[in-house]
Amino acid sequence: MADLIHKLKHGGGHIKEGSALKSGILLKENNPEQGTIKLGDLVGRNLIIGIPGAFTPPCSSHVPGYVQHYDAFVQKGIKDIYVVAVNDAFVTMAWKEKLGASASQVHFLADDDGSFTSEVGMLFDAKGLLGNKRSKRYVLVVDDGIVKHVFVESEVANVEVTKAENVLGKI
Amino acid sequence: MADLIHKLKHGGGHIKEGSALKSGILLKENNPEQGTIKLGDLVGRNLIIGIPGAFTPPCSSHVPGYVQHYDAFVQKGIKDIYVVAVNDAFVTMAWKEKLGASASQVHFLADDDGSFTSEVGMLFDAKGLLGNKRSKRYVLVVDDGIVKHVFVESEVANVEVTKAENVLGKI
Repeated sequence: MADLIHKLKHGGGHIKEGSALKSGILLKENNPEQGTIKLGDLVGRNLIIGIPGAFTPPCSSHVPGYVQHYDAFVQKGIKDIYVVAVNDAFVTMAWKEKLGASASQVHFLADDDGSFTSEVGMLFDAKGLLGNKRSKRYVLVVDDGIVKHVFVESEVANVEVTKAENVLGKI
Repeated sequence: MADLIHKLKHGGGHIKEGSALKSGILLKENNPEQGTIKLGDLVGRNLIIGIPGAFTPPCSSHVPGYVQHYDAFVQKGIKDIYVVAVNDAFVTMAWKEKLGASASQVHFLADDDGSFTSEVGMLFDAKGLLGNKRSKRYVLVVDDGIVKHVFVESEVANVEVTKAENVLGKI
């Protein structure tokens, strides 16, 4: 039923430019017991990066580009960068450390029950490799809760349209 | 329906001493694309340790005891030790490395879709902290596929009856 409602709302596809992010969904950052970040309620122009899995090789090569180019995104008017994975917060915190990004201002968020990822229509069945539903690889530019740009990989393992350097040149 | 069938099979509880592990369920070790270990088909006397979550603090203090006391378990006639988590294999592999256990003979297995954990009646709802269903904390001693000892924590965060030193003294 939840899948059906979702398809009716999103037409089976993902969120589009011009859409508003749903308000109020809490994602976890540094406290696994409690969500603290509401992506739909952020003020200003922010970047959201959805990735299929912490510690997977494609994501571990994808995300460092955003850490490395953080200042260049800020110069483009981006206020903050949020990486979102359907992993638990213990895993996303460990992954941030493993990537050597502990000191980075890039936020690593756990959408551990997939609520946010489902709401933006980016869940897909990753049962074969990861055991459950995960996030497609995508980037959203969101301004005061309104989606301004959407980049989605047609193959989740690819890092092409969502690559930091590509997104930097398009926003 | 799956939950109901499971309760009918297991009486809502976990696997008991004298029960046979189901044959054929594949768990992943070093290759996330394919399961390679069938716990129900192992020959000899083996130890299976179920843990709620890779990278969580209780599990990260629990599992090293088995790495440290590996030789003592072997002296007790244990052939191999298998740690099982409802995490994906990228995460269990990264966790093994993080625990400094890369050189250890302890196997870290990903039950990424929860098949094995469900079969032994050890799944529980960890939605609040981890987003989905995970494994209770337990230890099984299994001899040629028959369960000989069962140790289960009444509270999953506890490391008491399943502690390596305790299990060593009881088998």
